[in-house]
Amino acid sequence: MATMKVHGAIYSTASQKVFACLYEKELNFELVSIDMRAGAHKKKPFISLNPFGQVPAFEDGDLTLFESRAINLYIAHAYADKGTQLVYDGKKMATVSVWMQVEGHQFDPVASKLVWELSVKPILGMTTDAAVVEQKEAKMGQVLDIYEARLGQSKYLGGDDFTLADLHHLPCIQMLMGTQVKRLFDSRPHVSTLCADILARPAWLKLAAMQVNK
Amino acid sequence: MATMKVHGAIYSTASQKVFACLYEKELNFELVSIDMRAGAHKKKPFISLNPFGQVPAFEDGDLTLFESRAINLYIAHAYADKGTQLVYDGKKMATVSVWMQVEGHQFDPVASKLVWELSVKPILGMTTDAAVVEQKEAKMGQVLDIYEARLGQSKYLGGDDFTLADLHHLPCIQMLMGTQVKRLFDSRPHVSTLCADILARPAWLKLAAMQVNK
Repeated sequence: MATMKVHGAIYSTASQKVFACLYEKELNFELVSIDMRAGAHKKKPFISLNPFGQVPAFEDGDLTLFESRAINLYIAHAYADKGTQLVYDGKKMATVSVWMQVEGHQFDPVASKLVWELSVKPILGMTTDAAVVEQKEAKMGQVLDIYEARLGQSKYLGGDDFTLADLHHLPCIQMLMGTQVKRLFDSRPHVSTLCADILARPAWLKLAAMQVNK
Repeated sequence: MATMKVHGAIYSTASQKVFACLYEKELNFELVSIDMRAGAHKKKPFISLNPFGQVPAFEDGDLTLFESRAINLYIAHAYADKGTQLVYDGKKMATVSVWMQVEGHQFDPVASKLVWELSVKPILGMTTDAAVVEQKEAKMGQVLDIYEARLGQSKYLGGDDFTLADLHHLPCIQMLMGTQVKRLFDSRPHVSTLCADILARPAWLKLAAMQVNK
């Protein structure tokens, strides 16, 4: 079997979602680095893989995919017998799907904006917009209040097992733990426990090593 | 088997996604109307079904779900033997998943904003923001250019068959067809053909009747 390819960047949170999934599944893959600072994701040949010009794109033999959450659903189903089980069937999967949607539509829009303002802008020499940060922190607090209640009922967001619903939160949580937003996670006991648990997963630590060894 | 319940509103595009799916699957359901103008979706008892306070929520026996796209994935899988096949397996489903994500992350954020500015605000007696409309129309044009290229390769967005990837576009497309944005769909031949096809589906027409008979 040919090695799977991820066309992405190790500092891209969307690409990191896919790397984390592949490490959980103990699958070998080749990283094709896309130089986003040079705008390579907006040009050929990358846009022949994803016409929306966003990393990552993914190849497994003759199958080409994009959108990180769709890529991970494919990997989790196609390689069900490898590594960590990340998806389930029936009603259990229905609840995992709900929390995958929550990540995509409730958590990520707020978290990504905070990552941009507090982590990326300083690196690029741009000025953080304090008003945006204040507004998004308030929204993040509301989302995490709901997570706190949820995690009083089940160990992980999607149920009693670690699934893609948790995994997809990892890249933004990792970034935000290096910012003032950390206090919003730390002040909520169940959320804090979840973060400590998933950030310490061997597959996630491999990804941190990948970044160090770049 | 107890009848499934949708807690939602017939004028809510997210609720409409679920109604359209249930009609495609030829399943009976009970609509529990949530009075959004009175803010019922932000209060008990609704927030015990969806803590994020957004319609729809869904019940099937002892299973409670929210997030329309997750609800529909559950319905499509759990009632695979009823009505229209809306999901598939393996690589075919992987491509459907990509285009479901495209709907959620590329199309819907733009389409929902245009629906708000051009359809909802006038009803509420609010003033449409022309600058927002101009910006979002430009973005919608870019998205539909990619759809036009995609639909030159396959009859539907997710492949050769109608799937949830197409179905999830229906509510916003229906609304936008009553606005100036219609020209953006009409001017792209493959997009226009797709719209005519899916808007004429019997399940979707049932939903229109449901609105008339309210």
